[in-house]
Formats: sequence, C-alpha cells, structure tokens
Amino acid sequence: MRTEVAIIGAGPAGLMLSLLLRREGISSVVLESRSRAYVEQRVRAGLLEHWARELLIEIGAGERLQREGMVHDGIKLSSDGRLHHIDFRQLVGRIVTIYDQKEVVKDLIALSLSQGGEILFEAEATGLEGIESDRPVVHFQHGGEARTITCDFVAGCDGFHGIARPSIPDGVLTVYDRGYPFGWLGILSESPPPADELIYAYHERGFALFSMRSPTLSRLYLQCAPDEDAERWSDSQVFDELEARLGGSCALARGKVLQKSVTPMRSVVVEPMQHGRLFLAGDSAHIQPPTGAKGMNLAFADVVYLSRALTAHYRQNRDDALAGYSRTCLDRVWKAQRFSWFMTQLLHRFPDETAFDRRRQQADIGYVAGSVAAATALAENYSGLPLA
Amino acid sequence: MRTEVAIIGAGPAGLMLSLLLRREGISSVVLESRSRAYVEQRVRAGLLEHWARELLIEIGAGERLQREGMVHDGIKLSSDGRLHHIDFRQLVGRIVTIYDQKEVVKDLIALSLSQGGEILFEAEATGLEGIESDRPVVHFQHGGEARTITCDFVAGCDGFHGIARPSIPDGVLTVYDRGYPFGWLGILSESPPPADELIYAYHERGFALFSMRSPTLSRLYLQCAPDEDAERWSDSQVFDELEARLGGSCALARGKVLQKSVTPMRSVVVEPMQHGRLFLAGDSAHIQPPTGAKGMNLAFADVVYLSRALTAHYRQNRDDALAGYSRTCLDRVWKAQRFSWFMTQLLHRFPDETAFDRRRQQADIGYVAGSVAAATALAENYSGLPLA
Repeated sequence: MRTEVAIIGAGPAGLMLSLLLRREGISSVVLESRSRAYVEQRVRAGLLEHWARELLIEIGAGERLQREGMVHDGIKLSSDGRLHHIDFRQLVGRIVTIYDQKEVVKDLIALSLSQGGEILFEAEATGLEGIESDRPVVHFQHGGEARTITCDFVAGCDGFHGIARPSIPDGVLTVYDRGYPFGWLGILSESPPPADELIYAYHERGFALFSMRSPTLSRLYLQCAPDEDAERWSDSQVFDELEARLGGSCALARGKVLQKSVTPMRSVVVEPMQHGRLFLAGDSAHIQPPTGAKGMNLAFADVVYLSRALTAHYRQNRDDALAGYSRTCLDRVWKAQRFSWFMTQLLHRFPDETAFDRRRQQADIGYVAGSVAAATALAENYSGLPLA
Repeated sequence: MRTEVAIIGAGPAGLMLSLLLRREGISSVVLESRSRAYVEQRVRAGLLEHWARELLIEIGAGERLQREGMVHDGIKLSSDGRLHHIDFRQLVGRIVTIYDQKEVVKDLIALSLSQGGEILFEAEATGLEGIESDRPVVHFQHGGEARTITCDFVAGCDGFHGIARPSIPDGVLTVYDRGYPFGWLGILSESPPPADELIYAYHERGFALFSMRSPTLSRLYLQCAPDEDAERWSDSQVFDELEARLGGSCALARGKVLQKSVTPMRSVVVEPMQHGRLFLAGDSAHIQPPTGAKGMNLAFADVVYLSRALTAHYRQNRDDALAGYSRTCLDRVWKAQRFSWFMTQLLHRFPDETAFDRRRQQADIGYVAGSVAAATALAENYSGLPLA
C-alpha cells in the first residue's frame, strides 16, 4: 500500500488527524490493532474543552454531540461540605461538554467511513522502517497476512503502550515521569449524579469526584491507595465513603454498580514528540493524571498542530511547522501537566503532608473559590486554553 | 500604672495599634524591652502593600514615606535568563512601596511621641496576670524597678520570641509549623540594583532575589542550604553566584558588601490568636517565609482589625468583633501563608524534585508570566488583598 500519512491507532488522535488531512486533500490510512466494536466500546472518560467541541462540530462530527452531550457551564468545588461554583461561562465565556470518548470515537469512525476514509481494523502495526528517510514503511499484520504501507510520514497515535514511541532509537527521547502516592477507585452507578455539574470534593478523608456519563448514570471516584484492591470494597462501602467525602454539600443517590476499578495516577511526557518522519500525538507522547480532564483534548490539540504542519508541507512546500511540531505541542502539554498537577495538589491528601500543609491547602481552595482572578485561571485551563 | 490597652512591643504592630487607638480616644501604653535607638536600627525587610502605604499616610506617618519610599508598579520574574514583568498597576490598579521597616518604626515612634503617646523603652515585660479576667496586669522591669500596668486588654505585639504568646495556658494554642529545606544567603551591597523593580529569579542553580534599600543600596539573596555558613562565601563568590542566577537577563553591579547573613525560611501560625483579654498580633502569632513580603503588612492588618474591635467595645459596647478577632485575622494570615508558599514553590529548587517537577515548575512560571488571570492572582496578593 501507499499513502501520504500512515496513522497508527484509531483513537481520537488518529481518527481526527485522518479527517483533518482529508479536508486538505492529504491521503492517509489508519491502522488499528483492535476491532471496530472494541474501540467503540473502550471505556475512557469524556470531557471536551470548548474549542474541542467546536472542532468536532466544524469537521461535521458534532450532530450527536450537540444532541446528547451535556453542556456544563462550570464545575463545583466542595470543601469540607461547602459547595463553590466555578462558572466558566461567566468567567471566560467558555463551556465544557460531557460526552464519552467512545461516543466521540464512534462519531469520528462513522464520519470518516462516510467520506471514504481508510481505516483498517484488526491491523496490527508490527514495525517501522526508515523513519529517518523520506520514505518510511509501516509493517503490519492484517487478515493473517504480513503487509506494508509506504508513506511520507508516520503519525504515532497508538497510545502509551503502542509501537510508535519505542521505534524511536535509544537515546533520542527524554522521559519525564512522575507517580502519585494514590489512585482513584471508580464506580459506574445507575443513579443520577448529585449535581448538574461535576463536583470536585476535598475532604479530610480524601478527594472524591462526582462525575457522570448521562443524567441517570454516575461516574464516581474516591482517592485511594495506589495499589488499592477494588474487590475489597463492597458497593455500600463505596457509597458510604463517597457520601462522607461529599460532606453533606448535596444528596447522593445510590444505584446499581456496573463497574468498579482502580485508576492509577501518573504523569509522563516524552521529549521531543518527533523523530525523522515519525510524529507522536496524544497518549503515545504524554499521560496526564485524570484530575484535569485533559487526555482527549491534548490528543486533539496535537493533531490539529500536526495537520497544519503537514498541510504546510504538502500545499506550501514549507517544513518549518513540521520542524517546530514538538515545540508547539509541548508548550501546551506542559501547561496541561501544570494544570493537572495544580488540581491534583489542590484537592488530594498527601501521605507526607503536615497540619500546616492542610491548612494552607484549605486556604488555597478558599482562595480559588473567592478570588475572581484565581477562579478565572482555573476556568481558562479547565475549559481549554486557546490553540497556538 | 493604669491604661485601657497595654501593648507589648514597639514594632510596627504595637506602634500602629497605639496610634489607631489614640485616634478613637482609647488610651494605651507601649512597653518595649529594647532602646529606642535599637528598634529604630533593627534591620528588617521593608515592602508595603498598597493599603498599608495608604494607612500610614492616613494616620499622618506618611510624609517621609511619600518622599523617600520607592514606588514600584510591579515585580519582575526572571526564568532561566528571560525577564517577565508582572505589572500590578495595570493588572489590579495597585502599587507597592519599598521603605525599610526601621524607617516605618522611626516615623511611627516620632508621630506617636508628638501626639503625647506613651512608649516606655527598655521596659521589659516579665509576666502577664489575669488575662482570663477583665483586669489583666502586665508586670515589667523599667529603670531597674519592677512595675505593673493594670489594663482592660493586652495586645501581644512582641514578636515570635516575646512573652505574650507563652503566657497563654498550655493546651489552648495549636501551632502550625513548617520548615523549608533551604535558607536565603543575603548581602547588603553598596551598588545600584540591577532593575528598577524587584527581580525574583528562578534558575537551575537555585532561586535569587534582587531587591533594594535605595537606588544605590542593593539587598541581594541566594537560595542556599538551611544551615549554610555565610562566612564560607567570599564577596566575589556571592556576586558570581548572583550573576549566574540572573542568567544574563540584566547586568549586575558589584559594590562594597556591608552585611552578609543567612535567613532561615519558616512558616508558623498559631490558632487562635486570642485568649481571654490577650490578643496576639503580628509575628507573635505568625511567621511567613520572606518570599511573599508579607511580614509587616500582616502585622498592620492584625492591628487594624484589633483597633476596630476595641473601638466597638469602648464606643458601642459591642464585643462581637473582639470575639471574632482571631477568625478575621486568620483568614488573611492563611491567605498570606498560601501566597508565600505559592511564591516559594514557584521559584525555589527542592532537594526531592524530579526532572518532571522541574519542567512543570518552568511551565508554571511561563503560565504566570503569560496568563492575565494568573498574573492578576499574583498581583492581587503581592500588592495586598483588600482588608475584610
């Protein structure tokens, strides 16, 4: 096979890149190791920054999003039982939309196929060749056969455990890595969420997040030990703990628990995000702790920059944007890591904290809740900084 | 002796309290263990928040301040050699004034004595009696004699090592204490400062602060080990290190070094700030690391609240403000501690930091420098939050 851009991975990054390139008349093939049904059901969070919602609408994938996505004007902070509203719409004129990542993936696949886009499912990339040349080759397995795609560029959109990043020679990448001394115990509950917006709850017993998938389906999280065993927790113990951490700021309905698992908290960034003709985008280059809700949004930002740079290459014969791809992305990536860290340290309890730290942290939450400037800083990051 | 309010300590807090009370016709006596010459020469930093400057002018102690104080519109952040201006005047319509604390003390003493205020120098308070009654007694030594003042209220403005706080019975106070894994090596140099405003410099070699006493006298600091021996550093080594941390963002003049010492970094807050008829104000109740320049300003805020509460007691027979004194002060104190911590963690290097933390910190500085909201949050705190 021959294409201009070989895209590895049919997640939000890869699918969006393929659509953005097609709009510019640049050909691509998306290779996805899993089946279509698998990627359309893969459970991930789903919160779209303001511009990411607009991007989906603009490329023509926003019809169901506008119908089913839940528009939130802001979030609520709960501190020891008091609720504070951070009103993004009022502070920065922007909103966020709750819409599952798997729904985004469904919409992007449907749109792509309707435009004749080429997505090969159950096509596992097995190796990259010649990424330092101008004719890279992607080897993959499809339908029991070993096949290849020859291309001009490879986009590594295959997540943190994909093959793209490890194809970069040793010594090229620097990995910035940080663990956190806690995880999140999460449940999916058939019950309405306690409020019409997400509640980020700080409590002396630990952090809790009251999120949702729909008006009748709650996604609820508790700060827990990093190696917590989810099975140790009965459903009612989880609800008891969530209720305690909500601190009476609103009522918590209990429903049938459909899922229970522990999410580890980790931050990773690799630099640079490109080598030769291979460009990394999304989770293949960086992982954020879930506190800032940045994962899918950063993936979209990466591929917006990458599609612009590839467009400049093909349409204007200019490679400066390609050369600057990593620098452009990393500026936003580190701002997102900064924000995710800010939210994490603002709201979690830390094993090594002192009584002084705890009081300071409470003052920090009170300051964010009470200062227009501090609330605006939170709002502009949460709802999404403007693209460069 | 008999007075309405016995004030222990002739620092900024005690002197200002005495003046504010006199304006309301409430009598006071200030006891100061040191000589007038000593307190007028005691070296402390000196940065006045916007409202604190206005307070000094309003009470009639602002004549020399307005003539000699250096008005700064903001501060500069230096990050690995790049300078960013945080313009308080533009962001929040407020300024700060560089004016030595000892000059403030001189002006307050002169004003107080000119109004017939009673300040006893070399009068060492030795004990408090009956602070839980409505007739407390302060024992003190003066001119070789043991004397007493009977009063209605005692204001403990005698600093962290004074006798006021230890006079509160065991078990009443909770002490919140935090050390930092570094100190500041400071010099006073007969040379003009490198810029017309303070420079807070982040550098991979550590933090540095370029401050000033006058247009020809620089006060310069280097982050160092908490137990650093100042004598190990030659003058030229100090200047070399300062220059390295300035990173070429501007030129550093070298002058005769008049003083060299290590300032420890510590945060302390005691709660509550009152017991019976004893009210703590300023450093007797809280210590801030110098990064936020909050010491003298918090002391003034405390005594503004205290003078209001005492005025309500004497003029309106209302004790609610007295009862709420500690709560009112502590809200501001913790906001100041939060801000001092924010500035400290933003700009210092930490022994346990990872490469990830360092990148995040650089993104944090970049964010503060580049976001109006984040710069406004810094500006509103640095130039002084409004009084409650």
